[in-house]
Amino acid sequence: MAENDRDHIQSIERGFAVLLAFDAERTNPTLAEIAAATRLSRPAVRRILLTLQRLGYVKGSDGRWALTPRVLSIGQHYSASHALIEIVQPHLLQLAERTQESASLATLDGTEVVYIARVPVRRIMSINVSIGTRVPAHATSMGRVLLAWAPSSEVDRVIDESGLRACTARTITDPGRFRQALQEVRDQGWALVNEELEDGLLSVSAPIRDQSGVVVAALASSTSSGRSNVSLLCQEVVPLMLRTAERISADLGHRAAGSPVNRPGVSGDLKG
Amino acid sequence: MAENDRDHIQSIERGFAVLLAFDAERTNPTLAEIAAATRLSRPAVRRILLTLQRLGYVKGSDGRWALTPRVLSIGQHYSASHALIEIVQPHLLQLAERTQESASLATLDGTEVVYIARVPVRRIMSINVSIGTRVPAHATSMGRVLLAWAPSSEVDRVIDESGLRACTARTITDPGRFRQALQEVRDQGWALVNEELEDGLLSVSAPIRDQSGVVVAALASSTSSGRSNVSLLCQEVVPLMLRTAERISADLGHRAAGSPVNRPGVSGDLKG
Repeated sequence: MAENDRDHIQSIERGFAVLLAFDAERTNPTLAEIAAATRLSRPAVRRILLTLQRLGYVKGSDGRWALTPRVLSIGQHYSASHALIEIVQPHLLQLAERTQESASLATLDGTEVVYIARVPVRRIMSINVSIGTRVPAHATSMGRVLLAWAPSSEVDRVIDESGLRACTARTITDPGRFRQALQEVRDQGWALVNEELEDGLLSVSAPIRDQSGVVVAALASSTSSGRSNVSLLCQEVVPLMLRTAERISADLGHRAAGSPVNRPGVSGDLKG
Repeated sequence: MAENDRDHIQSIERGFAVLLAFDAERTNPTLAEIAAATRLSRPAVRRILLTLQRLGYVKGSDGRWALTPRVLSIGQHYSASHALIEIVQPHLLQLAERTQESASLATLDGTEVVYIARVPVRRIMSINVSIGTRVPAHATSMGRVLLAWAPSSEVDRVIDESGLRACTARTITDPGRFRQALQEVRDQGWALVNEELEDGLLSVSAPIRDQSGVVVAALASSTSSGRSNVSLLCQEVVPLMLRTAERISADLGHRAAGSPVNRPGVSGDLKG
């Protein structure tokens, strides 16, 4: 029985391992290349590929394999089951239009942030950032925001598991300095990260809160040092980003502490 | 051996069935709800959920289950392995900005079109359209474009398998009329579909061609009958959409038959 249990676990795990072996470096791998990437035997990989082909997730031709667009339906079920993603789209588009910079929404998964919605304006990172892309949380403005309002046990876990690995010469790698940076984000209400993830990459991020005030995602605007700089970003992009984050949070039912709705004595504000 | 083979197939298939049981109607299902949706036994669903949880794709709490953003990474591998998706992003954004209408890119999968990139401007369909969303090919402008330039065996297959099911009172359901509509798309170079997928939904679509001239995707702009109409769409949106489709195709290495580059005698055009 335990044997059977383990078998079940193993074949599902291997199925995902094979799917994830297709990437930018291996867009049309051979069976042998997938076997090498997953460290599975060729007969095992062959059985999995034939299964996935029957399910419509991969297709083989001339000894090479490729993912089909059907794999996108798995992520679509995530998006469809998260109302936030639909709510955020028009806001991201408006922010991207006004700033002429890419606008993104991300959430925390393990030690990484995952892009769950995005309006790309141009490519500024060395990797192709699309929905589902993962980057180290500790070196990004979105990760700082998500960790700034997370329980301290979560912060400890991320520091511990990520080891605050240096991505560039500027990455904060000292736990004490990192905790201090999170405190500054809490005090300020938003985060700026300057070339800690990648040289030439600057981004600012603000929290998105739900009805209960919990930070459920981070909104970000990203640019490059060739196009902008810290002071321009603070003057021109941060105010627009903060307003966008407030609007998204309001759509989720959040009322800011200082908002007119929460101050009955100043009903005149409501006319504004 | 055959037994073992079948087991492997079955557990991978069941793993996907469980993942796909999470949707807009079942965002936080119980084990019993997933069992009912997948028609699997509760012990089988339990084993699969525990496996998926260990792999980080779902999480359970208080007897309810949810997808994690990690499921997005599967689709991200599709996007990363298709250069087209990165190339198309700035073009989609520009088209959406200029038209103030949602811009999408789709490809054919079975009898459906799958959205592989999208810049949503507002919600015009009754469903939440995100990347990976699938709609019947025969009732959409994108499907018409993809089928107009597909081999006739492919058209036969889609007609046969979809049965040209009526989505609205206006859906073309007669195979002869459907083939005639595809001929008109080929003659015209683009497609318009007016309320055949959903009442109040209008869309126009144009082919994206690769270096060899093969139609690899369809670009579309969608609006609602409340905001626009057929003649406005033809006058204002179609020219912008066709130009965008040409630019994307050019980025993929396609040279249009009538483009200046192919007409050495008119080098003056190149200055424009």
